[in-house]
Amino acid sequence: MTTEKIDGVSVTTKASVYFDGKCVSHGITFPDGTKKSVGVILPATLTFNTGAPEIMEGVGGSCEYKLDGTDTWVKSGAGEQFSVPGNSKFDIRVTEAYHYICHFG
Amino acid sequence: MTTEKIDGVSVTTKASVYFDGKCVSHGITFPDGTKKSVGVILPATLTFNTGAPEIMEGVGGSCEYKLDGTDTWVKSGAGEQFSVPGNSKFDIRVTEAYHYICHFG
Repeated sequence: MTTEKIDGVSVTTKASVYFDGKCVSHGITFPDGTKKSVGVILPATLTFNTGAPEIMEGVGGSCEYKLDGTDTWVKSGAGEQFSVPGNSKFDIRVTEAYHYICHFG
Repeated sequence: MTTEKIDGVSVTTKASVYFDGKCVSHGITFPDGTKKSVGVILPATLTFNTGAPEIMEGVGGSCEYKLDGTDTWVKSGAGEQFSVPGNSKFDIRVTEAYHYICHFG
């Protein structure tokens, strides 16, 4: 089941642009103050650092990710999710644009 | 006055990716059904075609645009806007990421 839209949120109009545009996201805030982001990763292999723990929920395309301390690339696509611990990092490689919702905490 | 956020909208989670990622946007829908998009154009010179008339409202960075049938590049930045007729096109050149809200109709 893919989350195609998110209702009743406040959207930050200015995008966050990472890795020269290989990752672009917009922040959203729920009425209770919860913050998430919606974004896309374009074809690339990138390393992201986490502050808070993150859950990456795929909404289009697919990726392979490798958590810090592991040697295994795992595929994740639309309707699937994976969790990344806080204060950690993960590698992600994308060959077709991977669209996601990032849940924090 | 720059529009930093838009409240009470539904966000399409999957981004629209144009020109190999030089332009990335997310659609938003207001409670009354009005659709807009929030996006960013990365450094590039691009040509966009319009269906409906568009108003481009800058929320970060800046661009220069040239409307179809004109020879003049005009600068537009955060807090400024420009209008593009429907069924037309415009050139846009960006040297620092231009963040925008696109209003249709």
